[in-house]
Amino acid sequence: MGKKGDLGIAILGGTGYGAGELLRLIAAHPLAAAVSIVSSSTAGGKVADSHPQLRAINNLCFDGELNLDALSECEHGIIFSALPHATSAETIEKLLPEIEKRRLKVIDLSPDYRLRDPQAHDKFYPDSKTSPQLRAQFVYGLTELNREAIAGASFVANPGCLASAAALALAPIAKCELPAFKLRSPLVIDAKTGTSGAGLSLGANFHHAYRHASATAYKVLTHRHEPEIKEAAWGALESAPETFFVPHLLPISRGIFTTVYLTLESEVSPAAVKDLYSSFYAESPFIRLLADPPELGAVVCSNYCDIAFQVRGKQLVVMAALDNLVKGMAGVAIQNMNLICGLPEHTGLSFAAPGLI
Amino acid sequence: MGKKGDLGIAILGGTGYGAGELLRLIAAHPLAAAVSIVSSSTAGGKVADSHPQLRAINNLCFDGELNLDALSECEHGIIFSALPHATSAETIEKLLPEIEKRRLKVIDLSPDYRLRDPQAHDKFYPDSKTSPQLRAQFVYGLTELNREAIAGASFVANPGCLASAAALALAPIAKCELPAFKLRSPLVIDAKTGTSGAGLSLGANFHHAYRHASATAYKVLTHRHEPEIKEAAWGALESAPETFFVPHLLPISRGIFTTVYLTLESEVSPAAVKDLYSSFYAESPFIRLLADPPELGAVVCSNYCDIAFQVRGKQLVVMAALDNLVKGMAGVAIQNMNLICGLPEHTGLSFAAPGLI
Amino acid sequence: MGKKGDLGIAILGGTGYGAGELLRLIAAHPLAAAVSIVSSSTAGGKVADSHPQLRAINNLCFDGELNLDALSECEHGIIFSALPHATSAETIEKLLPEIEKRRLKVIDLSPDYRLRDPQAHDKFYPDSKTSPQLRAQFVYGLTELNREAIAGASFVANPGCLASAAALALAPIAKCELPAFKLRSPLVIDAKTGTSGAGLSLGANFHHAYRHASATAYKVLTHRHEPEIKEAAWGALESAPETFFVPHLLPISRGIFTTVYLTLESEVSPAAVKDLYSSFYAESPFIRLLADPPELGAVVCSNYCDIAFQVRGKQLVVMAALDNLVKGMAGVAIQNMNLICGLPEHTGLSFAAPGLI
Amino acid sequence: MGKKGDLGIAILGGTGYGAGELLRLIAAHPLAAAVSIVSSSTAGGKVADSHPQLRAINNLCFDGELNLDALSECEHGIIFSALPHATSAETIEKLLPEIEKRRLKVIDLSPDYRLRDPQAHDKFYPDSKTSPQLRAQFVYGLTELNREAIAGASFVANPGCLASAAALALAPIAKCELPAFKLRSPLVIDAKTGTSGAGLSLGANFHHAYRHASATAYKVLTHRHEPEIKEAAWGALESAPETFFVPHLLPISRGIFTTVYLTLESEVSPAAVKDLYSSFYAESPFIRLLADPPELGAVVCSNYCDIAFQVRGKQLVVMAALDNLVKGMAGVAIQNMNLICGLPEHTGLSFAAPGLI
Repeated sequence: MGKKGDLGIAILGGTGYGAGELLRLIAAHPLAAAVSIVSSSTAGGKVADSHPQLRAINNLCFDGELNLDALSECEHGIIFSALPHATSAETIEKLLPEIEKRRLKVIDLSPDYRLRDPQAHDKFYPDSKTSPQLRAQFVYGLTELNREAIAGASFVANPGCLASAAALALAPIAKCELPAFKLRSPLVIDAKTGTSGAGLSLGANFHHAYRHASATAYKVLTHRHEPEIKEAAWGALESAPETFFVPHLLPISRGIFTTVYLTLESEVSPAAVKDLYSSFYAESPFIRLLADPPELGAVVCSNYCDIAFQVRGKQLVVMAALDNLVKGMAGVAIQNMNLICGLPEHTGLSFAAPGLI
Repeated sequence: MGKKGDLGIAILGGTGYGAGELLRLIAAHPLAAAVSIVSSSTAGGKVADSHPQLRAINNLCFDGELNLDALSECEHGIIFSALPHATSAETIEKLLPEIEKRRLKVIDLSPDYRLRDPQAHDKFYPDSKTSPQLRAQFVYGLTELNREAIAGASFVANPGCLASAAALALAPIAKCELPAFKLRSPLVIDAKTGTSGAGLSLGANFHHAYRHASATAYKVLTHRHEPEIKEAAWGALESAPETFFVPHLLPISRGIFTTVYLTLESEVSPAAVKDLYSSFYAESPFIRLLADPPELGAVVCSNYCDIAFQVRGKQLVVMAALDNLVKGMAGVAIQNMNLICGLPEHTGLSFAAPGLI
Repeated sequence: MGKKGDLGIAILGGTGYGAGELLRLIAAHPLAAAVSIVSSSTAGGKVADSHPQLRAINNLCFDGELNLDALSECEHGIIFSALPHATSAETIEKLLPEIEKRRLKVIDLSPDYRLRDPQAHDKFYPDSKTSPQLRAQFVYGLTELNREAIAGASFVANPGCLASAAALALAPIAKCELPAFKLRSPLVIDAKTGTSGAGLSLGANFHHAYRHASATAYKVLTHRHEPEIKEAAWGALESAPETFFVPHLLPISRGIFTTVYLTLESEVSPAAVKDLYSSFYAESPFIRLLADPPELGAVVCSNYCDIAFQVRGKQLVVMAALDNLVKGMAGVAIQNMNLICGLPEHTGLSFAAPGLI
Repeated sequence: MGKKGDLGIAILGGTGYGAGELLRLIAAHPLAAAVSIVSSSTAGGKVADSHPQLRAINNLCFDGELNLDALSECEHGIIFSALPHATSAETIEKLLPEIEKRRLKVIDLSPDYRLRDPQAHDKFYPDSKTSPQLRAQFVYGLTELNREAIAGASFVANPGCLASAAALALAPIAKCELPAFKLRSPLVIDAKTGTSGAGLSLGANFHHAYRHASATAYKVLTHRHEPEIKEAAWGALESAPETFFVPHLLPISRGIFTTVYLTLESEVSPAAVKDLYSSFYAESPFIRLLADPPELGAVVCSNYCDIAFQVRGKQLVVMAALDNLVKGMAGVAIQNMNLICGLPEHTGLSFAAPGLI
C-alpha cells in the first residue's frame, strides 16, 4: 500500500502554530513525510527549535525557499500553505507555473480562497488579491460536506476553524429538504474558542497573565467566518437564513465549542433529529453523535468532532466540539490530502484524544 | 455613622463557597460583623479551617445552632442562609417564630423563595416545601431591579447567579415600552460560567484533572434559572417572550459571561441602545456600561457587572459579565443587607477587581 | 512483522485515569489490542462511557472478571493491573496459578511490588500484602535503567511517576564512578506535578474551583516515592545518599517537572556533564537532552522525557520533564510490554506531544 | 485620624501591572488617593482604559509629566516608581532636587537601589546607573525585616517578589544565633511563580496558548534575586551561606510558592522551629504560620504571606506563599508607605484573599 515518503509534503510558513500541528500529524502518517519546510525568517534554523515538541522526531532545517525538486521526486507532491492571508495568495500565485508544471497539489490553510461570493470576499478580506481563474479552481475543503470535489481537486481552500464547527452543526439541517426541518430565521451561532486560534502574533490581551482566567467576546456580529458558515452549510450566501454569529475567547489553548440555536416551523421529535444527523454523517468517521453535550476534553488534540443536540417543542439546540488546530485546521488538511491522494480519509488520523488535558 | 458590629450577621450553612465569600465581604464591611456561623457538621471547629483565606481575619468557631441571642444584641440582626435548597426553607420556617419575635431579617441565598409562579416553583423545585404565607413575604433580591421593595423587606430571596447576569442584560429592554425596542421572539440566552457555581459537592466531572482544559454545556433547555430570568426581567412568566437558555461550563473558577441575542421589530441605533441602558442603570453603582465586550478579568472578585452591546440592523447582542460568587451571590446579598439596614447599597462593596487573576 | 491483536491486552481496574491512557496507547499500537477490560463496578457498561475520548475507537464493554481464555488465544497475553495498591497485589496473587499456567505476563502499575527493601515496603505500604516469592520475580520497570531484566521478565513492577522523573534525572550521576561526579550529600529533589496523578478519587481539595489557580506542596519529606527513587537510581537504599524529596501540586492536569540540586566534590564542566548524560542515554529513544530548561508543553501527552542541566562551580542542577500518565505510567508500561514481547521499545510510542495544550 | 487624600500618591510608569495593582490598593486605602499617574506613552488617556478593573473607581487621566504641585498640596506626598529598572533610577535622579525641596518620599518598585553590594549591583544590573549618594539614602523595603529604618526613610527600595518570598522563609533562621539553628551550606531555594511577574512585555513564550498548561524553569542559577535574598536575610553577601536558586514559571497569573531546603548542624524539634518563627513574626500582621503546607489560593490577591515548615532529623523544609503583585510588590509598597507616614502598617491592607480564584 505504499511507504512513508510516497506523499511528499512542503509547508509554506513553517514557524506558526498551524505548521507545528501539520508536522505533528505528518510525522504520524504512514505515507506522508515532510520534505521542505519553508520559512524566510528562520531559514537554516532547525525546525525543532521552533516546534520543540518535534525534537528527535523532525530533524529538518527550514528552507528559505520551497524545494520544488524534492517535492517533484515524490509520488505525490503536496504544498500546504500556512502563511497569513494575502501573503498566502501572493505566494501561491507566484508559484503557480511550477505547481502546474510539476502537477503539485495545494492546500491553502489561509482564508484567501475560501469565500465563493466575490463581494463578501472583498468586504472581509480587502487586502487579499486573488485571480478569478485560480479562485475558480479552488475547492472548499470542509471534507464532510464536499468529499467528491475535494478528491478530484488540485487546489483546496482549507476551511476556517470556527466556520467548520458551525457548519458541521448546521449542515444536516441546512441541506435537509423535509418540511419538518424548515427553519424560522434568524438562527444564533454562539462560538467559544481557545487562544491558539489567534496564532503566534501577540497583543497584550494574549499575555498569559491577562487571559489566564478571563473570557470575552470579540468581533461581535462582524467576524469574517459568518459568510463562510453560510456558504459552507447552505451552498451560497443568498440561500442562507439570517444569522447572529458571536465568537468568544476562553482561557484554554485549544478547542472550539459551538452552540447553535434554531427555531423550526413545527415541533420535531428527538428521534427525527437523531435520524437526520446519523444518516447525514453515516460515512463520516470523525463525526461522533452523542446523547449528552460534548466535552472539549474528549476531542482536543484529536481529529474528532463531537455533536449533540437538545429539542424542546420547536426549539432545537445543536452543539459541536472540536480542536481548532486539528479538525479545525491541520487535521482536516490531512483528511483533504488523503482524499486527493486516493487514500481513505482517516489515514493517519484516527488516534484518540488524550481525554485529560 | 455607626461602628463595626452594628450589623450582626449570622450564616446558616457556614462551610460552603457562598459562606466563605460572605465572610470575606463582611470582614471588609465597615459596620457588619459575623456573630454566629452555623454548621452542624463542623460545630466547634474553626471557621478559618474551612476557609483558609480567612486565617488571622476571622477567629470564630462554628456554632452547632444559630446563636439568636448574640444576633438580637446587635442594632440590626441579619440571617444569611447559605444552605442547600429545601433544607434552607425548612430551616427558615422552623426558626420563623424567633425571627419574627426578635425582628431579625433573612436573606436566603437558596432558590427556595425565588420563583413567584407556584407552578414553576413546584416543577423546578419539587422537593422545596415552602408555606404560601412566608413566600408572600419574600421579596426578590436582584437589587438593581427591585430596590424599593428590598429596602422595606424582612425576607429577601437572593437571586440566582445565572439569572442575575441574564436579567441585568435584558431588563432595560424588557421593561422598555418604546415601540423601537419591541422584541420579535424568541430570544437566545447563552451563558458561560465557572466551576465554583457548582458548589463544594463533587462529582468526577468536577475533578480538576478532568475540567482543567475542557468546556461543556449542561441542563440544555432545562435549567431552572430560565423561569427566574423571565420573572426577574419581565415581572411574570406570562409577560415574557419565548426564550432559549443554555448554560456552559468553563474551566475557570469564577465568573459568568452571558450573551443574549435579540431581534427587534425595527432597526435601532447604537445611540438609542446606549441611552436606554445608561438611563436605566443611572443610579446603579455596580453596573458599568462599556463600549467594548466585557472581560471577565475586569469583574471577577468584585461586585461589578460589566455590560456592553452590539447592534446590526434589527439585531441586538447584549453581553453581561459578573462574578458568580460576588455580584451573583454574596455581593448582591450584602447590597440587599445594606438597603434593608438603611445604608447606601455600595457600602463595603466598591473595591476593584484584581484585574489579573 | 505481525498484526494488530498479536499482543492481547487485559486491564484490571478499567475505569481509572491509568486505564484510559493505556487504552489510548494500545489503540495506536500496531500489534496490541485490548481483549478484556475488567471493572467489577461497571461490568457490562461500555468502556467508552467511562473514557469518552475513546468513542468510535474502542467499542468493548467492561468484563466483570478477567477473560483468561481470550487472552490465552493471542500470541502474547499481557495483563496490566491498574488497580489501587493492595487490591492489585491481592488480585494478582489470586490469579497467579492461571497466569503461570497460561504463560501470561503481568505489568503492575501499582506500587505493590516496586520496593526491593522489605522494611521500606512495609513502612510505606503497610496494607500491601505480597508474597516474598512473587516479589522476587518482579522486575522494576523503569525501562531506561533496567532494559535487559525487563526483556526477560514475566512480572514487571511499573515505576511511580514522580520516581521516574527523579530517577531519570539522577541515574547518570548515581551510576557514574568517575571521581569528578562524586556527590556531597544531601541532594534535593523538588518535584512539581499535575492533578491527574491523584487519580479519580476525589477530595474537596481536588475540586476544580479550588485548584484552578492554586499550588501547594504535599507529603513533605514523607512521600513514598523517595525510597523508590533511591533504589531506582542507586540500586539499593543503603547505597544512596541522603535526600530531600518534596512534591508540589500544580494547577495543570498532566505533567511532572522535577528539579534536582546536587553538590559535587569538585568543579565540573558543562561539557563533562553533557558527555555523561549523552552517553548514558545514547540508546534511549525517549530521553531528549536539551540545552535549555524543558517546557512541560513539549512532552505532555507524549512518551518523551526532556532533560537539561545547569552547572555553576560545584553546583549542578538537573531538570526532567515528562507526562505522568504517559512516560510516568501508561507509556512506560507499553515500553516494557514491547521489550517483553521482543519488539523495539518505541513501538507505537514515538508520536509527538501536541506542543500547545 | 485623617481623611482620604491626606496621602497624595503619584505613580511613575502608570500603565504596567504594578501600577494597576497599586491603584487598586490605593482606591481601597482610607487615607491615600492618587493625584498624578504618569505615562509618557499614553498621556491624556484614561487610566481606566489601561486598567479596566478600575472603571468607575479611578476617573483620572494619565499625566505626561509628574504633577509635583498636586503632590505638594497633600499632607504627605509619595512617589511610587513602577518604571523599568535603569529608567527608574534615571527618572528619580532627575527629579531629585524637586523631591528634596518638596520633602516628597520615594518608593521605587524597580531593582535600581536594592542591592547593597556595589559589585553585585554592577554585575546583575549593568545598565542601571545610580549615584552612590542617593543609593546610600535608600532603605531596603522588606517591611518585616526592616521596619524601623523604613519608618524613618525618605527613599525606599521596594523588594523583589521572588526575593521577598525566599527572605521571609529564611530570615528567622538567618538571623538566629542559637547553635541549634546553625546551617550546613549549601541551601536550596526552589521558587515557583506566575506569569504576571514577567510584566506586560511580551515574548512568544508568554502567549497564553503556549503557557496555558506548561511549566518551566528560567535563569537557572543566574537569577538576579539571588544576591538580594542573601542581603535581605543575612544582611550582607559575605555573611550568607552558599545557595542554589532556581525560579520556575507556572501557568497561573499570580502567586509565588517558594520551598527552601536547609540542613542543620544538629537535629531540631518541630516545636523549636515553631517557636523561632512565631516569635520572629510576632508583630507581623501579614505573616501567617500554618501547620500544613500553604495553598496559593489562600493568599493570592491579598497581602498575606503564609509560611509552614517540615522537620526530619537535621532536615528542615520551609515553604512560603504570597501574591507577587501584592505582598511581592504593590502591597509591601503600601506597607512601607504606611510606616513612612506614621500609620499602622496594615492600614488599608487587611482584606482577605478571595480563596477561590
